[in-house]
Amino acid sequence: MNYKARKRAASQWMKRSGLDALLITHLPDVRYLCGFTGSNAALVLTGGKSVLFTDGRYIQQAKEEAGGTKVVIEKKSAVTAACEWVADSGVASCGFDASITTVAALEGMRKAIPAKVRRRLFVASDAPVATLRQVKDEDEIQKLRQAAKLGCSLFDGMLEYLRPGLTEIDVAATLEYRARQAGAEAMSFETIVASGPRSAMPHGRASTAKLPRRGFVTLDFGVVLDGYMSDMTRTVHLGKAQPEERDVYDAVLEAQEAAVAAVAPGVSAGEIDEAARSVLRRAGLDRWFTHSTGHGVGLEIHELPRLAAKQTQKLEPGMVITIEPGVYMPGKFGLRIEDMVLVTSEGHEILTPSVKAWIEL
Amino acid sequence: MNYKARKRAASQWMKRSGLDALLITHLPDVRYLCGFTGSNAALVLTGGKSVLFTDGRYIQQAKEEAGGTKVVIEKKSAVTAACEWVADSGVASCGFDASITTVAALEGMRKAIPAKVRRRLFVASDAPVATLRQVKDEDEIQKLRQAAKLGCSLFDGMLEYLRPGLTEIDVAATLEYRARQAGAEAMSFETIVASGPRSAMPHGRASTAKLPRRGFVTLDFGVVLDGYMSDMTRTVHLGKAQPEERDVYDAVLEAQEAAVAAVAPGVSAGEIDEAARSVLRRAGLDRWFTHSTGHGVGLEIHELPRLAAKQTQKLEPGMVITIEPGVYMPGKFGLRIEDMVLVTSEGHEILTPSVKAWIEL
Repeated sequence: MNYKARKRAASQWMKRSGLDALLITHLPDVRYLCGFTGSNAALVLTGGKSVLFTDGRYIQQAKEEAGGTKVVIEKKSAVTAACEWVADSGVASCGFDASITTVAALEGMRKAIPAKVRRRLFVASDAPVATLRQVKDEDEIQKLRQAAKLGCSLFDGMLEYLRPGLTEIDVAATLEYRARQAGAEAMSFETIVASGPRSAMPHGRASTAKLPRRGFVTLDFGVVLDGYMSDMTRTVHLGKAQPEERDVYDAVLEAQEAAVAAVAPGVSAGEIDEAARSVLRRAGLDRWFTHSTGHGVGLEIHELPRLAAKQTQKLEPGMVITIEPGVYMPGKFGLRIEDMVLVTSEGHEILTPSVKAWIEL
Repeated sequence: MNYKARKRAASQWMKRSGLDALLITHLPDVRYLCGFTGSNAALVLTGGKSVLFTDGRYIQQAKEEAGGTKVVIEKKSAVTAACEWVADSGVASCGFDASITTVAALEGMRKAIPAKVRRRLFVASDAPVATLRQVKDEDEIQKLRQAAKLGCSLFDGMLEYLRPGLTEIDVAATLEYRARQAGAEAMSFETIVASGPRSAMPHGRASTAKLPRRGFVTLDFGVVLDGYMSDMTRTVHLGKAQPEERDVYDAVLEAQEAAVAAVAPGVSAGEIDEAARSVLRRAGLDRWFTHSTGHGVGLEIHELPRLAAKQTQKLEPGMVITIEPGVYMPGKFGLRIEDMVLVTSEGHEILTPSVKAWIEL
């Protein structure tokens, strides 16, 4: 991974923002900038230097993972140690991420430094590293591609397994076992298996409910490979469908494909959302599409950008986003279809090519 | 679950703190107080009322789960809606949890309310709900007991499975599959399987490394049952051990048992930590015990209290804590032994009775 280039980009952001240093305490941000994956860490960037603070549990791991970064092992909290170091270093201003830092943590940071610099040293910044992380570099795209590919092969394998009478938990357990056997470090999030009337819950946890003889099964899951997360949803039908089920499926699929087709550099996140929503509006189903269209994905499952109504942010090549419209009719049924999509300089590339056409098992 | 009693306790805390209302945005706190498990929620408590704000995805679920609480479905963010409601309600002061609320979120909360009340309405509070959640009620103890029991039966089952040549990921995958089949909703955290020299990493992720013919295997894992999390660690030895391995194991076990024996109401968290640490100090091993002795556990894997050096907080009946000293010698080996322990009015009860005596497989 090109940590040097990433640190350079962060330093350029600091410079543009008139800051002398940047304190990074969000663990995925730390990992992104220097490679360290431990559970206690604070990273400080100044113009040319980067210093990682962690504790005695990570002596060996920090050396192995954070090669290009000076490592300081501390008994006190990593953040406290980092703040003291920043104050001692004599820099005039140090940014921190206001979207991550709690009110109490900021208070603690201020208490860790001398009173005379307390009021002006730390400067609130708006998600500086998360903003950089929106646009993935080649290494990251490669890793996301691998994770998405594994997700697809797991989904394809589940088609032979799904049958009436299995519990939703059976399905989740088998999927997760196969994911682990195939090398996944973890699942990206709690696997969603929602069947029959439960498919009307957009975020139904896998339960002891049995897959029905006739009805939808929605699978929404992801795997983590080398820190990078996949995210995909497919909905299949067990047994013969009612005409309404088929109609709603076709509308959601049309909405999903319209939103994917709209993905290109320079298009706003709100336009992508509207591309999906307008199809469902024409079908009279938009009132049941109760969430936003998608989100960025990478080292975390929910990253920037947010693809929601009225979002003016423009897509850029290298962003990896989900496109996941759904329709949920309480007491009846629901369904969702989701792909991971890479924004390319020409337009887009779907990273999750598993079939989206109607599947009746 | 007795949500009424929990809300009453929170209201009493408000009263003692001179606050008219309390805004709760941390999802486990929301679940604790009203039962709602959705992923977007804000709860407001005033003297007698409680109002839950969430979005259209959760119409059905909020009604089912949050019976005794007024539910408001909003298109805008749940927190924004809650802040507007608080400002409209005319209360003079509303607490928020400074240990959870980010600097940016507080800014957003202030922007959501009229300028004339902006400067004084919101009052920073120090983890009010997390503080209540330290002491578990009967329902919670029952759930934690069940989760811990399932953890133990899974560990016992793994003893017949562990053998040289399996990868650490095989072990984690099998354990997690069995957990799911036994009804676990999820694992409490990423399962740790650290074998051979990797056992010297306190938080070694399960890797593709193979279990050695001779060496330690540390398993640290937990299961989630009905929202409540278990947490336990056992270390077993494959093949015949070196005398040093056996000596270190005996010292860690003695330290762990000394700390468990010290658990009783009125004893400070620091004294528990010292009970473990002093045993390892006498054995000349304390420099390799590089973390704290334990933590509370419940709806989250890391809760209050913290059992670390010099913590003056006193244990109380109903607290459920982990006791987990370890020794990690980089390049050689490491091990940890961890129980979940309930503080009772007489002393303590171990919730994870799986054998801790030396096991050689």
